[in-house]
Amino acid sequence: MTDAIGSGSRILLGHGGGGRLMQDLIGDCLSLLGPANGVTQLNDAATLELPSGERIAMTTDSFVVSPIMFPGGDVGRLAVCGTVNDLACMGARPLGLTLGLVIEEGLETETLAQITASIRIACEEADARIVTGDTKVVERGAADCLFINTAGVGLIPPGVELGGERASAGDVVIVNGTLADHAVAVLKARNELPLEGDFRTDCAPLNGLVESMLEAGGDGVHAIRDLTRGGLSASLNEMSEQSSAHIEIVEDAIPLKPQTRAACDLLGYDPMAMANEGKLMVLVAPDRADAVLAAMKSHALGQDAAVLGEVKGLGESRVTARTPLGPTRIVDLPSGELLPRIC
Amino acid sequence: MTDAIGSGSRILLGHGGGGRLMQDLIGDCLSLLGPANGVTQLNDAATLELPSGERIAMTTDSFVVSPIMFPGGDVGRLAVCGTVNDLACMGARPLGLTLGLVIEEGLETETLAQITASIRIACEEADARIVTGDTKVVERGAADCLFINTAGVGLIPPGVELGGERASAGDVVIVNGTLADHAVAVLKARNELPLEGDFRTDCAPLNGLVESMLEAGGDGVHAIRDLTRGGLSASLNEMSEQSSAHIEIVEDAIPLKPQTRAACDLLGYDPMAMANEGKLMVLVAPDRADAVLAAMKSHALGQDAAVLGEVKGLGESRVTARTPLGPTRIVDLPSGELLPRIC
Repeated sequence: MTDAIGSGSRILLGHGGGGRLMQDLIGDCLSLLGPANGVTQLNDAATLELPSGERIAMTTDSFVVSPIMFPGGDVGRLAVCGTVNDLACMGARPLGLTLGLVIEEGLETETLAQITASIRIACEEADARIVTGDTKVVERGAADCLFINTAGVGLIPPGVELGGERASAGDVVIVNGTLADHAVAVLKARNELPLEGDFRTDCAPLNGLVESMLEAGGDGVHAIRDLTRGGLSASLNEMSEQSSAHIEIVEDAIPLKPQTRAACDLLGYDPMAMANEGKLMVLVAPDRADAVLAAMKSHALGQDAAVLGEVKGLGESRVTARTPLGPTRIVDLPSGELLPRIC
Repeated sequence: MTDAIGSGSRILLGHGGGGRLMQDLIGDCLSLLGPANGVTQLNDAATLELPSGERIAMTTDSFVVSPIMFPGGDVGRLAVCGTVNDLACMGARPLGLTLGLVIEEGLETETLAQITASIRIACEEADARIVTGDTKVVERGAADCLFINTAGVGLIPPGVELGGERASAGDVVIVNGTLADHAVAVLKARNELPLEGDFRTDCAPLNGLVESMLEAGGDGVHAIRDLTRGGLSASLNEMSEQSSAHIEIVEDAIPLKPQTRAACDLLGYDPMAMANEGKLMVLVAPDRADAVLAAMKSHALGQDAAVLGEVKGLGESRVTARTPLGPTRIVDLPSGELLPRIC
């Protein structure tokens, strides 16, 4: 047992932040679960093989965002998109989602109805289906409004093999659009952002986009990851670690909306470490990169797609960024909890 | 929209109780999700068919029990067993479970380690595996210690068809042992039970028992349901509704530990409406009932199995109980929340 869960210590908010502390906690938790429960890969979803040889992906996420409604979305939309996107990152098409509600006593039923309607719309956009659910109500003060867990199962088409462990030297790093919009929208909803402007979450189901990318890039598409907690920094570091790869990006190439940049500058946040809910990065073989980029740009959810960098080589896990003035800096896994309750 | 989620109203604890209020809420929620998300059957898990023809069952449950540790178990054991048992009631063998943790800031890491170890042991007993997980930490006061969501996927062997809609006239109702032990153990842990005695939860994975039952009863086994929130009363009513069946049980035939009976008498609770976490009821064709009962009694988790009654006929949904003095009474779906935070 490491210090992270040693005796006498307590769980910190940072343990849920998607960064280094959380990796420690998960590592420790999983090691206690024993080898039979070993999650051997750090991908967004697990892969299960059935007796027929068919492969399904399985994932889960709990959504505890505060407030539960924010510009452009709510916890219901987040829950559907988050799980659909985790499946999509494995190349899987959603077969069914589960919906687990933990409701605080006293929640207005009208609010619950709005969230439910939002879940329905997100399911329609994603061509996904809630197949079963569970509802718990806890007394006032024992939960904060509404927590939603969605788990999902998806079918991985034959031949599709995606994973952070498949990065190859020369792979091109592409993102599908502007970063940090979700985090900034939630800050706005919390009245923690003293700026006027159209700050909206980017929350969207990315499975359609991924299908276009796979069609264009075939087996040249090596790895996809959605950029949620910990943002681009966390995803780059996780993939780098999975493949022992040196990934280098160009800071200036990161797409940012002007108002998002202004918000991050004002509050001192690094947009690379901030959460998105409709953004992904892909590692694609250089000979397929143009085709994949074109497919992304022709999709409604990839119009601002941009090449960020490349896999410089294998053998040593490292993420670096070329800064506007020339020198490169190390991009660390975010440590602790920058923005609690963001998703 | 019905009154249950009409405008101006608020969610009550009873909406999470497994009874009538909850059915209203779920009915309303699901109807808002629209026909594409229609859960057409009220079984413990959904069934999905894959292109190969293989069938998988999928289920989810959130566990918000308070306190998180109680005699004989804890929220971790509960989470594994609850989901394994929902799959087992569809005849499905667990392929993989997900583990979604919502942790309150400040939880002792030692406590989390104990729960994790308990999850591991329950997985070993059930021959099940956690394949993926998610961890959220919310600030102190935004959740109560630890909530766990587990979703599960299981493989339904060819030929196995179980469901509350398959009840037939003459079917025998059997339970696998004493009722209400879980609820009473949680009451004891809350210091709400002024009695001394060995009150322990019955929490256990029932998939091995179900396999023995299916081996003994074949397609004569029509429906299985685990007796969690709402207890035997809720399960009988749900099956009765699914099959438009009149089910009659004999009150005196219900197995009860003497100390559980004493606790229920003292506190004025109906053991039929109380939660179990290692108990199930089965509807089995009369010509297979002896074989299934014998298989149950020879299994460690069915030694106190007992015949409770039978399906008197189809055509009208009704549950009745023969009382010790002779007359029959209606067994209603429990209304509201008898015991909040029991699972």
